[in-house]
Amino acid sequence: MRAAVLRRGALVVDTLPDPEPGPGEVLVRTLACGICGSDLHALRHLDALVEAAHESGVPFVLDPARDVVMGHEFCAEIVGFGPETQRSLRPGTRVVSMPLAVGPSGVQGVGYSNDYPGGYGELMRLSELFLLPVPNGLGAEHAALTEPMAVGVHAVAKAGLAPGDAPLVVGCGPVGLAVIAALALRGAEPIVAADFSPARRALAARLGAHVVVDPAVRPAVEAWRAAAGARPAVIFECVGAPGLLDGIMRDAPRGARIVVVGVCMEDDRIRPMRGINKELAIQFVLGYTPDEFAGTLRDIAEGRIPVAPLVTGRVGVDGVAGAFEALARPDAHAKILVDPGRA
Amino acid sequence: MRAAVLRRGALVVDTLPDPEPGPGEVLVRTLACGICGSDLHALRHLDALVEAAHESGVPFVLDPARDVVMGHEFCAEIVGFGPETQRSLRPGTRVVSMPLAVGPSGVQGVGYSNDYPGGYGELMRLSELFLLPVPNGLGAEHAALTEPMAVGVHAVAKAGLAPGDAPLVVGCGPVGLAVIAALALRGAEPIVAADFSPARRALAARLGAHVVVDPAVRPAVEAWRAAAGARPAVIFECVGAPGLLDGIMRDAPRGARIVVVGVCMEDDRIRPMRGINKELAIQFVLGYTPDEFAGTLRDIAEGRIPVAPLVTGRVGVDGVAGAFEALARPDAHAKILVDPGRA
Repeated sequence: MRAAVLRRGALVVDTLPDPEPGPGEVLVRTLACGICGSDLHALRHLDALVEAAHESGVPFVLDPARDVVMGHEFCAEIVGFGPETQRSLRPGTRVVSMPLAVGPSGVQGVGYSNDYPGGYGELMRLSELFLLPVPNGLGAEHAALTEPMAVGVHAVAKAGLAPGDAPLVVGCGPVGLAVIAALALRGAEPIVAADFSPARRALAARLGAHVVVDPAVRPAVEAWRAAAGARPAVIFECVGAPGLLDGIMRDAPRGARIVVVGVCMEDDRIRPMRGINKELAIQFVLGYTPDEFAGTLRDIAEGRIPVAPLVTGRVGVDGVAGAFEALARPDAHAKILVDPGRA
Repeated sequence: MRAAVLRRGALVVDTLPDPEPGPGEVLVRTLACGICGSDLHALRHLDALVEAAHESGVPFVLDPARDVVMGHEFCAEIVGFGPETQRSLRPGTRVVSMPLAVGPSGVQGVGYSNDYPGGYGELMRLSELFLLPVPNGLGAEHAALTEPMAVGVHAVAKAGLAPGDAPLVVGCGPVGLAVIAALALRGAEPIVAADFSPARRALAARLGAHVVVDPAVRPAVEAWRAAAGARPAVIFECVGAPGLLDGIMRDAPRGARIVVVGVCMEDDRIRPMRGINKELAIQFVLGYTPDEFAGTLRDIAEGRIPVAPLVTGRVGVDGVAGAFEALARPDAHAKILVDPGRA
């Protein structure tokens, strides 16, 4: 199959052997796969990512010296079955799946594995157990957004919003937009969202933010205060760069809860007295539960989570490396989808 | 009055003008006052403390260039009344109080103020509103431990312990011991506590720890795992030094809640991926509520919080500077009480 391959720190297009579905596995053809900010990180910091995952016992067993086909935000169609499969879904069925596989060496991440290529290639092998048929005639591009939107749904669930809590979303890239959509789904208001990029602020408003603010013009917390008054603050850090957390701790009102959704792979510096004096709480979050993933698919299919505005670009495998470069400039894009079958 | 005075970064004994109670204030004679780790910090880092407090809007308005009489863990007896007082408590009544005063320039911390001297001096002026008579014939030394023990009660309350949660207390200085006592009061078990000092481990056991561990011999989390198995972890950081939080994040089991009770006044470095990969939560805590303070006094007076083992030394004002030096060696002491009337 043709694939965009992460090989020794670079993205190259190559033809690889087709994946062979093992016991309990299904062979699928990728229809659409989103490019995730984590993949941009992985391209530059794969060794650090693997080390951090090992330390924490996260299923992320890959050898950075061997080929990896990334891509974990996918929609695909069934084209074949491995041994010991139930085959309750027919070939041609459009499916999504949490990007997890249970292989002989344990749980692995599809798209972060040497054995389980992700959606930047034409074919994948997936665990039949995790397949969810796409309902309601939902298109592949929108179904592929299940995974990133589930991240927002999970973050908001972990925030444990109480009635009256007033959210502030710092950063309106794909993660921040997913959080905004999940907050809107719960009826939270006012949703205040901050980003330096005008294009992203416009997307934030389309996904449900009631107030958008350019932090270059007005501090995000100041805009939040004007909108939310003395209500309890729940601040979603959706950037994932060093210094962000400490800046939020500096500006946060007393008693604020900070939910860290952005993935900062570098070491970071904080001033604990900022947390102590204001009794701040920090909740780090990752991923989603199977229920949240399935619920997000339903919410997208039934129009409760608007995802159409998020798709700002489409490429084939030859365009993946260029798309990574484009995504490094935050103003240009939200989500670029890869269609490996595209010429 | 005679007092141990913080003057330009040193503790000196001097005779100061007697404080004069203002409207709504009472003049009291200090009977016993504990030396707090925060005072040790303040002696060395007063400027940083004041700056951090200002930034966070904490009532801590003092001029480091002027005299400060520290001491905020006190028991005292009423000796006089200012104007506009209710006088429902008689002179000679033994009282404790949250170390807060409402002066013309706003809320101030008694013992962290140029205007409201604390318990390292013979006399204090306190707000009548905050006075709590000491019940049950409780002695002044034990009543003076209300403030530090309330810190533990508050930390455990903020931890939101659910049935089955298994606590680990890292550091068994006065703060860790207060947390252990508050956990024991709630019937939490097993309580696992870690400290390098044998004397402090012995105190931890007397205050209610079921398992004590020397981290030099066995990692604290390993001992916790042996005692608690797969139960949810609630880890109390009671040391307050740079690096502690990151080490706890490295060792913590997935989903652990970390309650930061120790006061780290320096900048600190964390590795966010440790928090993300394990979905850790961090709750910073400070102080206590008025209800928690009053409840702690009752719990001490009725024998539900054992405080006698905590008192490991007694000094007069002349001994305060030496006591600060002794407390810098963690093995020698838990709590040293100042009795300014002592020769």
